[in-house]
Amino acid sequence: MIDVAGNYKEDAFSKSIHRPTLLLDTKRALTNIEKMLEKANRHDVLLRPHFKTHQSAEVGSWFREKGIHSITVSSLDMAQYFSEHDWTDITVAVPVNLRQVNTINRLADKCRLGLLVESKSVCAALENALTSELTVWIKIDVGYHRTGIAWQNFGTIVDLANTITKSRRMQFAGILTHAGHTYCSDSPEQIINIYHESVGRMVAVRDELRDAGLDPLVSVGDTPGCSLADSFGEVDEIRPGNFVFFDLMQLQFGACEEQDIAVAVACPVIAKHTSRQQLVIYGGAVHLSKEAILNQTGLPNYGGICQLKDHRWSALYRNSFLSSISQEHGIIDADHELFATTDIGDLIVVIPVHSCLTANLFGEYLTFNGDTIKKFRY
Amino acid sequence: MIDVAGNYKEDAFSKSIHRPTLLLDTKRALTNIEKMLEKANRHDVLLRPHFKTHQSAEVGSWFREKGIHSITVSSLDMAQYFSEHDWTDITVAVPVNLRQVNTINRLADKCRLGLLVESKSVCAALENALTSELTVWIKIDVGYHRTGIAWQNFGTIVDLANTITKSRRMQFAGILTHAGHTYCSDSPEQIINIYHESVGRMVAVRDELRDAGLDPLVSVGDTPGCSLADSFGEVDEIRPGNFVFFDLMQLQFGACEEQDIAVAVACPVIAKHTSRQQLVIYGGAVHLSKEAILNQTGLPNYGGICQLKDHRWSALYRNSFLSSISQEHGIIDADHELFATTDIGDLIVVIPVHSCLTANLFGEYLTFNGDTIKKFRY
Repeated sequence: MIDVAGNYKEDAFSKSIHRPTLLLDTKRALTNIEKMLEKANRHDVLLRPHFKTHQSAEVGSWFREKGIHSITVSSLDMAQYFSEHDWTDITVAVPVNLRQVNTINRLADKCRLGLLVESKSVCAALENALTSELTVWIKIDVGYHRTGIAWQNFGTIVDLANTITKSRRMQFAGILTHAGHTYCSDSPEQIINIYHESVGRMVAVRDELRDAGLDPLVSVGDTPGCSLADSFGEVDEIRPGNFVFFDLMQLQFGACEEQDIAVAVACPVIAKHTSRQQLVIYGGAVHLSKEAILNQTGLPNYGGICQLKDHRWSALYRNSFLSSISQEHGIIDADHELFATTDIGDLIVVIPVHSCLTANLFGEYLTFNGDTIKKFRY
Repeated sequence: MIDVAGNYKEDAFSKSIHRPTLLLDTKRALTNIEKMLEKANRHDVLLRPHFKTHQSAEVGSWFREKGIHSITVSSLDMAQYFSEHDWTDITVAVPVNLRQVNTINRLADKCRLGLLVESKSVCAALENALTSELTVWIKIDVGYHRTGIAWQNFGTIVDLANTITKSRRMQFAGILTHAGHTYCSDSPEQIINIYHESVGRMVAVRDELRDAGLDPLVSVGDTPGCSLADSFGEVDEIRPGNFVFFDLMQLQFGACEEQDIAVAVACPVIAKHTSRQQLVIYGGAVHLSKEAILNQTGLPNYGGICQLKDHRWSALYRNSFLSSISQEHGIIDADHELFATTDIGDLIVVIPVHSCLTANLFGEYLTFNGDTIKKFRY
């Protein structure tokens, strides 16, 4: 907060923030990691966390300190970054990009690299181009309809698995799915149902492969499902990612509590409009992404609103939200209390709708200790 | 294109692209610059282009070579970047961020810096903190309702202008608006009407200020309005930005022709799904942003679809579009021809919905000559 004389009435931490800044509550992130790991251990499944959410070697090291050595990423470039930070068991959970065969070969030389395939033509192209050994998962579509072979197509799946097992360079790891349709659910119950339905479908595929003499691992994972399901069923590994930070969308799903959310963006207030009871922040689509959820009133919501106090952000202002966003501006529809207690020059903390996309827009995190944590950037 | 044997059947330019890559058609961008400059010159207004779209010193130099020396940016950090690249007349077209007074003073020492204010309290805080001289524009709201003083509030505006003129460090430049509500228009006619209505409102404010003995400049500008209006009216400068590249949204508005669009993202195809006639590309929200427009059928469209041929992208496939997007995946609903002629491993070119947000996600452009053009990044 700046008074008219230009003096700050803030603590040193707040004073250090001059522009939209990605805040990381390390304690919450650590707790989120511990909780998911404990749940995975309790159910005897491997936690292979998706690192696309945080994209940071340092945050990754917190997982390693808990005994996690297998990770998931969303691109070969991200795999390379984590490989350079001594990760040696990396699954790239996107159908393989054949245009990066050189990167694939380099990575496969350095680490246990896992790739996803869903067609024999890609297998053939890979087989021809590979100079190193790697593991291959068959991507299965259990209902999300983004990628993968439809789970009911047992014959196609078995045929592809047999092709992989005959390969010189490819080792067949198993079957992998992402039940992303949990993100379209209306209730925690529906998310849990989708999780168990998905596992049931994966188990049916696994059984067909077993009947064909193969022994596939089963890999599943999305944050809503893994957070809400009380047990993981007959799977070998889970790959949630967002749970390390959570966000407003996960809160709306019921996949987390407000106090689990571990990242937010501090934004300076640059204008106030009394007639509309709106605050304008320096903080827009280039800081938060344009991901929106719908409020209960059906209006788009680009972020939850808090204040920064005593080295933490406050509880959400339930009747205030980021109602509009352009490249660098955000408009907050503020409740009376927030509007009355916020001045131009103050900081507002925005809870992102989708923390993966928000974190992706920054090169670093700021912790409440004032430390900077660097991250990968495309 | 990669055949099963892993051999490319592409030219050297296409072969050089391995991952989502931001393509820049330099010839189109240069033509866009020339056309807008010619129009500004013909109507005797200053073109102060908004550089938030391209964010690149090299693209900026193309404007300079045409005789443009005054620019607009959307943050003080971007102003600093262009100041380091020898730009000396820079307006930051966002209400001033008081938390960056040190940056403001440093910049004001080096260049003719223009800031936006809309309240006396901010003026007072600035006056107190400034150690260098700068120019100040009063931000006027002509109907967009994002920022600015409502244009009808003549008394407030005149009062603020008088406060600025009494300042030691601030020179009153004039009144500035962004009629961003052109972006909500249904037709070119409506955009033109908003443009002229906005100018009329600005002229009314200017006349009030003249009656008070002041002589303000009038600055307006948004790409739809500046592209479609046949004349600019009684304004001194225009500040469009997006016109350098245009995009799918501007095409939908009628603000450009398809052959004016100067940026696109080349994306590898990573999966094909015959049952849904869908192509999956490696290219998602972290490459394109989540900006969407609605198709004529009311479905969200995250990008237009072309193929890459002979060092250029093809005409848009009118019946194909990017129907869904996640962090790194994009789903194309493909027409029969596109689906039949596209293989896994090929490149698809996506025309962005909003080129400013797409360009912001990359650190560089690739031209059809194979040159890399670096840009600013937050």
